[in-house]
Amino acid sequence: MKGRVLAHNMNKRKIINDPIYGFITIPSDIIFDLMEHKWFQRLRRIKQLALTHYVYPGALHTRFHHALGALHLTTQAIDVLRSKGVQISEEEAEAVLIAILLHDIGHGPFSHALEHTLMDIHHEDLSLLFMQKLNVEFDGKLTLAIDIFSGKYHKPFLHQLVSGQLDMDRMDYLSRDSFFTGVAEGVIGFHRIIKMLMVHDNRLCIEEKGIYSIERFLTARRLMYWQVYLHKSTLAAEVMMISVLKRAKQLAESRGLRTPSAALNFFLEKNFTVNDLDSQGDAIIKNFALLDDSDIIMALKAFSKEEDFTIRFISEGLLHRKLFRVEISDRPFTSDHIKKIRQKIELTFQKQLEDVNAFFIQGEQSNTTYTILKDEIMIISKKGELIPMSKVASADIRSQIITKHYLCYPKTKS
Amino acid sequence: MKGRVLAHNMNKRKIINDPIYGFITIPSDIIFDLMEHKWFQRLRRIKQLALTHYVYPGALHTRFHHALGALHLTTQAIDVLRSKGVQISEEEAEAVLIAILLHDIGHGPFSHALEHTLMDIHHEDLSLLFMQKLNVEFDGKLTLAIDIFSGKYHKPFLHQLVSGQLDMDRMDYLSRDSFFTGVAEGVIGFHRIIKMLMVHDNRLCIEEKGIYSIERFLTARRLMYWQVYLHKSTLAAEVMMISVLKRAKQLAESRGLRTPSAALNFFLEKNFTVNDLDSQGDAIIKNFALLDDSDIIMALKAFSKEEDFTIRFISEGLLHRKLFRVEISDRPFTSDHIKKIRQKIELTFQKQLEDVNAFFIQGEQSNTTYTILKDEIMIISKKGELIPMSKVASADIRSQIITKHYLCYPKTKS
Amino acid sequence: MKGRVLAHNMNKRKIINDPIYGFITIPSDIIFDLMEHKWFQRLRRIKQLALTHYVYPGALHTRFHHALGALHLTTQAIDVLRSKGVQISEEEAEAVLIAILLHDIGHGPFSHALEHTLMDIHHEDLSLLFMQKLNVEFDGKLTLAIDIFSGKYHKPFLHQLVSGQLDMDRMDYLSRDSFFTGVAEGVIGFHRIIKMLMVHDNRLCIEEKGIYSIERFLTARRLMYWQVYLHKSTLAAEVMMISVLKRAKQLAESRGLRTPSAALNFFLEKNFTVNDLDSQGDAIIKNFALLDDSDIIMALKAFSKEEDFTIRFISEGLLHRKLFRVEISDRPFTSDHIKKIRQKIELTFQKQLEDVNAFFIQGEQSNTTYTILKDEIMIISKKGELIPMSKVASADIRSQIITKHYLCYPKTKS
Amino acid sequence: MKGRVLAHNMNKRKIINDPIYGFITIPSDIIFDLMEHKWFQRLRRIKQLALTHYVYPGALHTRFHHALGALHLTTQAIDVLRSKGVQISEEEAEAVLIAILLHDIGHGPFSHALEHTLMDIHHEDLSLLFMQKLNVEFDGKLTLAIDIFSGKYHKPFLHQLVSGQLDMDRMDYLSRDSFFTGVAEGVIGFHRIIKMLMVHDNRLCIEEKGIYSIERFLTARRLMYWQVYLHKSTLAAEVMMISVLKRAKQLAESRGLRTPSAALNFFLEKNFTVNDLDSQGDAIIKNFALLDDSDIIMALKAFSKEEDFTIRFISEGLLHRKLFRVEISDRPFTSDHIKKIRQKIELTFQKQLEDVNAFFIQGEQSNTTYTILKDEIMIISKKGELIPMSKVASADIRSQIITKHYLCYPKTKS
Repeated sequence: MKGRVLAHNMNKRKIINDPIYGFITIPSDIIFDLMEHKWFQRLRRIKQLALTHYVYPGALHTRFHHALGALHLTTQAIDVLRSKGVQISEEEAEAVLIAILLHDIGHGPFSHALEHTLMDIHHEDLSLLFMQKLNVEFDGKLTLAIDIFSGKYHKPFLHQLVSGQLDMDRMDYLSRDSFFTGVAEGVIGFHRIIKMLMVHDNRLCIEEKGIYSIERFLTARRLMYWQVYLHKSTLAAEVMMISVLKRAKQLAESRGLRTPSAALNFFLEKNFTVNDLDSQGDAIIKNFALLDDSDIIMALKAFSKEEDFTIRFISEGLLHRKLFRVEISDRPFTSDHIKKIRQKIELTFQKQLEDVNAFFIQGEQSNTTYTILKDEIMIISKKGELIPMSKVASADIRSQIITKHYLCYPKTKS
Repeated sequence: MKGRVLAHNMNKRKIINDPIYGFITIPSDIIFDLMEHKWFQRLRRIKQLALTHYVYPGALHTRFHHALGALHLTTQAIDVLRSKGVQISEEEAEAVLIAILLHDIGHGPFSHALEHTLMDIHHEDLSLLFMQKLNVEFDGKLTLAIDIFSGKYHKPFLHQLVSGQLDMDRMDYLSRDSFFTGVAEGVIGFHRIIKMLMVHDNRLCIEEKGIYSIERFLTARRLMYWQVYLHKSTLAAEVMMISVLKRAKQLAESRGLRTPSAALNFFLEKNFTVNDLDSQGDAIIKNFALLDDSDIIMALKAFSKEEDFTIRFISEGLLHRKLFRVEISDRPFTSDHIKKIRQKIELTFQKQLEDVNAFFIQGEQSNTTYTILKDEIMIISKKGELIPMSKVASADIRSQIITKHYLCYPKTKS
Repeated sequence: MKGRVLAHNMNKRKIINDPIYGFITIPSDIIFDLMEHKWFQRLRRIKQLALTHYVYPGALHTRFHHALGALHLTTQAIDVLRSKGVQISEEEAEAVLIAILLHDIGHGPFSHALEHTLMDIHHEDLSLLFMQKLNVEFDGKLTLAIDIFSGKYHKPFLHQLVSGQLDMDRMDYLSRDSFFTGVAEGVIGFHRIIKMLMVHDNRLCIEEKGIYSIERFLTARRLMYWQVYLHKSTLAAEVMMISVLKRAKQLAESRGLRTPSAALNFFLEKNFTVNDLDSQGDAIIKNFALLDDSDIIMALKAFSKEEDFTIRFISEGLLHRKLFRVEISDRPFTSDHIKKIRQKIELTFQKQLEDVNAFFIQGEQSNTTYTILKDEIMIISKKGELIPMSKVASADIRSQIITKHYLCYPKTKS
Repeated sequence: MKGRVLAHNMNKRKIINDPIYGFITIPSDIIFDLMEHKWFQRLRRIKQLALTHYVYPGALHTRFHHALGALHLTTQAIDVLRSKGVQISEEEAEAVLIAILLHDIGHGPFSHALEHTLMDIHHEDLSLLFMQKLNVEFDGKLTLAIDIFSGKYHKPFLHQLVSGQLDMDRMDYLSRDSFFTGVAEGVIGFHRIIKMLMVHDNRLCIEEKGIYSIERFLTARRLMYWQVYLHKSTLAAEVMMISVLKRAKQLAESRGLRTPSAALNFFLEKNFTVNDLDSQGDAIIKNFALLDDSDIIMALKAFSKEEDFTIRFISEGLLHRKLFRVEISDRPFTSDHIKKIRQKIELTFQKQLEDVNAFFIQGEQSNTTYTILKDEIMIISKKGELIPMSKVASADIRSQIITKHYLCYPKTKS
């Protein structure tokens, strides 16, 4: 096959422009072939930060681009570790690269909002399922990657590069999210952090002289959390998206509502759970792999012409950026306050609403995934001792678990 | 109206993060209100560079973001000119800002490809039509902006800020396109160019000490042209998009093909021209304003399941990035070469194709819009004389009109 | 005076390239004239960070450049405050700009090291003295600037722009130091912080939505402290510089040592204190104004040929970057440890040394000037309430006062 | 020697912050040891761009920093070439790195101005001499580096990396000079250019897809030439520096003028030429290696107190940035114009001047070293053919040789 050989040669040289890293080089043929797969290409149509671009208009980057970026940083991390004498075979290197490339392949559109609304299956389970199916297609060449991804391989640091306190996933997404949002507070020194990576007892750690970079990384991560990921308007859009989908599921059942997307309809008609994967895994994967942001946008546009006031009102709001108001509080809202707001919403909308709960959402947000209380970053001193980061930091780095309570409801005139 | 007053106060302070300029401040209430309009919000769903992200994965920025950026640069240009004593009244300033904000509002999805395929109306005519309709809605407050946009106002330099060799439109799109593609060769010194703007005899010109910035600007523009706007793969995707739409129109007529998008179907069913604007302007605008990138993506996904081989093959190619091969030549291809390629395509595909022309596209590309042969940039010397840029540049800046011939057809094995 | 008029016109337009801010515009004639003064031009020859370039080779920026940068940020801060309705007259604006331009004019070469070695006068006292003398030369036009600089003016926020927790001095030096060192951990979002400045009850504060930028600013400041300002090798160089000068003073007295610099000799011959300013102020200022980094470098080069081993050894070390070893500890060193090291030094050098103390320096460093325990940054909430930053930050921002103990002595073989 | 071993380990990990490249890694022990040598450390005290900081205040970077930068880019270039199959042995790699590290070691302070004033020996001859002396000190380990530096080695591309149209010297200095001046017009895409390097027939060339980066590189280089290297005020400072030194030499001979610098006096007392290298090479090198920017600054400060009006006036001008006026013209100045100016200077200054020529300097500047008329950059096409850059560029890239005539004389009132 001449074409194959040519492709091989081209792969080796394939360079992709990236506004953050300059250039990303595709490291091997199998990576190239996986990237060409339609399941991976589909990530080009799924935005990493869903509706965050309503607050930060540049935040349009996709899960495709993020996966490439994480791949790039992982090649750098492997180089650094090898240069320090850490043994990583060619097979292991390729497997880590495959694992990081595919770590998010189970994400669907607006997945933070839709993950448990559209169906009750976690994206990591789906990622694993996608990898297993790809493994069949690629003649078992993904087996080691799957072991590393699942944490079964006997060198834990390889898994930690893919998923851990210092994994290349978050190195890239923090860098990428802050770059495209323009939130300078989130810029991390990925370059330096990666240079400071080390392995001790098969676990990833950081050289002592890298502690300042880690401190900055932790601050940046915390600020991104409050400034971007939990921004009021992002939250409002997310809550509205969940509300719309819930209502769509109700109407699908009660009145046979359908969207212009057959794949989306598949998930409106039935609520799948992990237990369905055995019996209907193929159909679930097939339809899920057809979904992207467009299906949701087209559904919203169709919903905005529906008769049902609830779905119409929220869909129009989402399309034209008329977002619900969000109140946030460190403490639970008083029942008096809740009652007052709820009455106002009822007064304004009750004639048109079947269920006020679609227009008055209460909830909590917590930064648990952004704290370092467990699985602490380990520092390796010049003398070779492992020390938890919290012991050597120049300030208290343990951002506490903070739970914020919110109310979300339409803006009203008075 | 208490809400109104609050909104007014908020507007004044409204700041939007932009990864290029840091922050964009919304300068006035009417600008804010125009931005809130659903016709403008719709630009959030239309990518500035269509399918260019197939080559440069970061190139996902929208016409919405570009319009904001051009607005920002225009506020800066007005400040600079005023600080040099150029008289610009508050009304004029606001009108220029409105004109630049709305200059691209007539763009539809993938407009470079679809402009003359979907319907035969130029986007500038549509922009004007949108503005006129908005003017009615906004009680005539856009009249001066429309005059400036149309070049009817008696201070031509205001029009030149919106459309001309040094307009804020291209200052922003060159900066933005090079930023999001990561093509460093396209970075221009917009900051310095704007500082060097001057007005002489009511026309925009550049201070003498700015000539180096202009030289760099011209080089950057030329390189962006070849490296991004006319990149082979971008061209292939564009040609394929045109081919798909043409075929869709044929099938719509011959076999009643429809897409999941009602608004798109409206344009598949009939080929509108400028002449239809009088009789059916409202319906055209209404449906056009419903279109965005999602409609096209959903159409491609539907087409990829169609029975017709032509539309299916190209749609799948576009969706999964299996792009046609492109040959480019400075001279017309020889008839021998054309015949040879065409025969190969026929041999491979003719059984499945109704018309080989869908799979074998010939054409020309020219950089005419990027040359400066007419409407030259004028330099104002320290002594106050106007000199054409080509007379003072340190090298020959006149990039010639270059016409490139291309062939575009599917990749085949041998 | 025709020349004067020309100068006036040119001033207005004078633009200086700055790699951090792009361009710095000289805002007025008196600022231009002060910049032209030889006392200010002299700051071109005094590096902001003394010998820090031994660790970070890019850190060569001067006090001249820093003063310009602080000037630039102050013009921006004034614009922002005025746009929010804060009353600042033209006279006040010019006075603040003069005060910030001249705030460091009393610095001499390597001033952190030499301030109390060369003579016993604080640089702020010298800055004030320079300003007073310039005020005479400029016909009293600096009076208001001096009042603001001294904190006597009735609008404290103007003084706070020059000297306070959020002054333009540190905004610039943190930005500039991190830029030229390449220490990304020190990058602050000066752009956004300045946009968030506000005045309440005549005091500077920050709008609520700016708290993330302030958190990042505090982290950056803390990290710069440990990573740059108190870097081991910087500390070693500084300690060595103090040692050399002390020894030079001893030798000047005991053996009439002189350097190639007459101005430097003036200060070697006698140890001036604040009390001498009255009687010998003119001579002190005159000679001090002749000093710059070159005088010290030339002295080191001369010292490196001296017979005296102490001054020769340390001078050569400083010239050729053979820096002393530094041990740092959170707790005081044990007397055992001190004894052990001291004996090793004595063993190695005692034959050549008159006084081992020149080669064995003990001391403490503390980050007190970088904490915010007093003079806290105030946040103004959306409702107009003032809240101390520590109450609203998303993490504990109070970096404690940390005292580090150090030993500094020559490297030895074993 | 235990110390040695420790040093070895440390070297391997030694990382230097660089604001342009992020980090520079010292690649080997001998490189580290050469950097530690006092002859190399001396480059820390010699600014790359002499007095250019009078125009661009950030331009304070040193020849030391530039040498490190060029070293860094060369390690990258070697990696790129090797990854494309170009054979470069470990010995060759180290030798190229040594050659680039030391390529400018023969530069003295303000060398563009002083090279032929201080003595009549070219800096490249001195660099070679320094290398040869170091070679003795380092037991012959620099022999291959010297061969490559001198162009004697049988793989010319290694020499071209050090000195040629695309050498790492100019890659770094263009990047560095534009970075520190803040002249964005000079930014080149070194990253991409290096990625595009290739070797064909033992000569350096560029892959076809890199032509846009090369076009941009050539434009940037041309603009830096006019905007920085030949900037009027830089030229004035340079001309004044030459004038001062010439006068100092006259006065040294006629009246025994001496400076505070013994090393500088050595060169004032006698005018050395290449012919003296044999007989007095050691003394020349020894004294030359003691010179840095400080010696010149201290001399200027001493000269500014001299009785001789000529040397006093120009030295004060240089110290306090009272620069001469420069007139530049594409054509030779008319004798009338020259006469008029000269008379004005004579009228103003003749009473105080011995020789008006010190205050009225005529000359020419040409951009010959920045053109590509000979030694053209070669492009290697996808088919493996070599094509001169001028044949494939998208515009005329041959900037002509331009000669500019200048007059330089003190500003006068009328």
